[in-house]
Amino acid sequence: MKVKVSRKAHFNAAHRLFRPEWDDAKNLAVFGKCSNPKYHGHNYDLVVSVTGAIDITTGFVMDMKVLKDLIISEIEDAFDHKNLNEEVPEFAELNPTTENIAVVIWQKLRPNIDPEHELEVVLYETPRNFVTYSG
Amino acid sequence: MKVKVSRKAHFNAAHRLFRPEWDDAKNLAVFGKCSNPKYHGHNYDLVVSVTGAIDITTGFVMDMKVLKDLIISEIEDAFDHKNLNEEVPEFAELNPTTENIAVVIWQKLRPNIDPEHELEVVLYETPRNFVTYSG
Amino acid sequence: MKVKVSRKAHFNAAHRLFRPEWDDAKNLAVFGKCSNPKYHGHNYDLVVSVTGAIDITTGFVMDMKVLKDLIISEIEDAFDHKNLNEEVPEFAELNPTTENIAVVIWQKLRPNIDPEHELEVVLYETPRNFVTYSG
Amino acid sequence: MKVKVSRKAHFNAAHRLFRPEWDDAKNLAVFGKCSNPKYHGHNYDLVVSVTGAIDITTGFVMDMKVLKDLIISEIEDAFDHKNLNEEVPEFAELNPTTENIAVVIWQKLRPNIDPEHELEVVLYETPRNFVTYSG
Amino acid sequence: MKVKVSRKAHFNAAHRLFRPEWDDAKNLAVFGKCSNPKYHGHNYDLVVSVTGAIDITTGFVMDMKVLKDLIISEIEDAFDHKNLNEEVPEFAELNPTTENIAVVIWQKLRPNIDPEHELEVVLYETPRNFVTYSG
Amino acid sequence: MKVKVSRKAHFNAAHRLFRPEWDDAKNLAVFGKCSNPKYHGHNYDLVVSVTGAIDITTGFVMDMKVLKDLIISEIEDAFDHKNLNEEVPEFAELNPTTENIAVVIWQKLRPNIDPEHELEVVLYETPRNFVTYSG
Repeated sequence: MKVKVSRKAHFNAAHRLFRPEWDDAKNLAVFGKCSNPKYHGHNYDLVVSVTGAIDITTGFVMDMKVLKDLIISEIEDAFDHKNLNEEVPEFAELNPTTENIAVVIWQKLRPNIDPEHELEVVLYETPRNFVTYSG
Repeated sequence: MKVKVSRKAHFNAAHRLFRPEWDDAKNLAVFGKCSNPKYHGHNYDLVVSVTGAIDITTGFVMDMKVLKDLIISEIEDAFDHKNLNEEVPEFAELNPTTENIAVVIWQKLRPNIDPEHELEVVLYETPRNFVTYSG
Repeated sequence: MKVKVSRKAHFNAAHRLFRPEWDDAKNLAVFGKCSNPKYHGHNYDLVVSVTGAIDITTGFVMDMKVLKDLIISEIEDAFDHKNLNEEVPEFAELNPTTENIAVVIWQKLRPNIDPEHELEVVLYETPRNFVTYSG
Repeated sequence: MKVKVSRKAHFNAAHRLFRPEWDDAKNLAVFGKCSNPKYHGHNYDLVVSVTGAIDITTGFVMDMKVLKDLIISEIEDAFDHKNLNEEVPEFAELNPTTENIAVVIWQKLRPNIDPEHELEVVLYETPRNFVTYSG
Repeated sequence: MKVKVSRKAHFNAAHRLFRPEWDDAKNLAVFGKCSNPKYHGHNYDLVVSVTGAIDITTGFVMDMKVLKDLIISEIEDAFDHKNLNEEVPEFAELNPTTENIAVVIWQKLRPNIDPEHELEVVLYETPRNFVTYSG
Repeated sequence: MKVKVSRKAHFNAAHRLFRPEWDDAKNLAVFGKCSNPKYHGHNYDLVVSVTGAIDITTGFVMDMKVLKDLIISEIEDAFDHKNLNEEVPEFAELNPTTENIAVVIWQKLRPNIDPEHELEVVLYETPRNFVTYSG
């Protein structure tokens, strides 16, 4: 009897999409205005879901306060009000597309979640563009 | 060719999280402010989804008016403007966590849905905390 | 050149609508299911707006971090996860309708806001019912 | 390592639900007010999701600008500000229920998506009624 | 001490924008795809607000159940699942732009609201286009 | 008989809050993490409202297509996917707080709106922080 519990969070960050070995013209051709060398930014909305059995004592799959604090310490403290390209080590050489950011978030959270639980990350770059990753 | 049809509903209720065999201090330690003996409450949002084949005559998997009325009679009439702990029999001895409420809703709806159809329940306790259960 | 700055917050609480001098039947006739003696509850959404001139040095009408902290200390700490009727002194003898809660919130915030600034409170009891008060 | 990327779009259209071989009374009995012969309409919200591996060069599963333009050319240009029954050929003899519209959208998009990618369509007829189809 | 109470409702309808004395080409030039002679449609969201003093006995400006029922009887029953041009008498000779629909809604509600109360109507044709009218 | 028509738009941008004559420590003390010298960013949502009489011929206060195109040419083309501090001339020496951005947007739109019409700008920096300016 598995249940999925989900917690919503958010962070605001600057980024640009580009490959350093390409010149500006090629980056513009591939990544459009997202390649602006001066950066742009987003209010990222994040939904983290953990799936497992309900603990009979608490009635919880996972304490949402624990999940909330984990998202703060692992993700918000690292990403919020930051320049993803320049200030978040995981993106020093990795293009911070929504896909790659979602995978990095999943990888940062996974070791902190009960190994018997499944983990899913949904990341909204805008209300119109979003990505789902579950390992 | 399976299609999932979803219907959104809502109810407003009071509840508290606690185990009666624990004292207030232990309940506070485990459940935090959700254990307040005087209760607190939520606007619960509910999404009920039914998955099956499209009926060729109607073009429906399931008539949404029937699903809407079923949610009203089985869930809203029983839960809306109620104290879940004190007035809803299923929670007389079951802690009304979002997980447990979602499972109870699923169990109340399941006998009323075509056995060939799958049933999924998503229950939002707040826009930031929600639970998914599909049996 | 006046600008209105707004900050959104939320709290979850239980309440009931009733007049103590009326019996249950009369309270039910006037307040409907909102009069349930066992209480029900809501996720209240709150928008607090402050109107004034932009400070030339900061570019702020009011520092939103200060407004956020003020809402936490004056409103969220007092109302969140509480039974409004039984645990919030302002409603010991005042019916906690959305109208009255909005007025109480305004009265609690007003002394903490620059007297030259206007103050407006919008309180959502549900996404479908809300109230606006500005003194 | 599969990732799902999603893009939200919308179109506004008129439609009615009915079977031409039934008279108005039977259509009303089965389809309710949705069978109004003079039509009614909706703001349809559409979420198209494509699942596949992340391209190492771009960091994309699929370029969202390409997906956005594909939804415009295949769906919005064909459906937006149209009468689905009278002006969209796919519904000349197919009842435009949300289920059938979602399937038609999926069938129109599928040939334009990389065959190695999975495709899912979520179509909201209203914020309260929606349908998911993935082939 | 005036308070504004607001109630949200919705209806789904078909319409077209056009002037009958103009030919299709001129209507298209002025009203764009909204002039489609076969109609299109929307999920209209409606917010009705009533401003007045709080009644000391009830704590209400106006009973929201009464306002809800009034919107159903005066607006939803008349507009929902209808073709505004062909089935709603007020638009027999009046172009059903969002502006004109909002004014008609206000005029239909005004006689049913306490004369000492102010009335405001906000009508969303889409989440991106909306109109406010207060007499 | 004045009606207010509103149009929603959005743009994504990077910015930082700071005064160039202050050192990093003082900027951090006043503007918090918003002063990060490497920038952060937001999905800004913008609601532009124009108030005036309904034109009897069209039923419009102002053609929403014209307003939409005006917002694109004056605001989105100038602000979207830009670094507000470094790439938008209005903020070369003006701190891009939400208040100041809203005023700049109003000033850029005002000359393009009928002088008999009132203009209001609501700018959301996040869903929780927003600003209203009407001249």
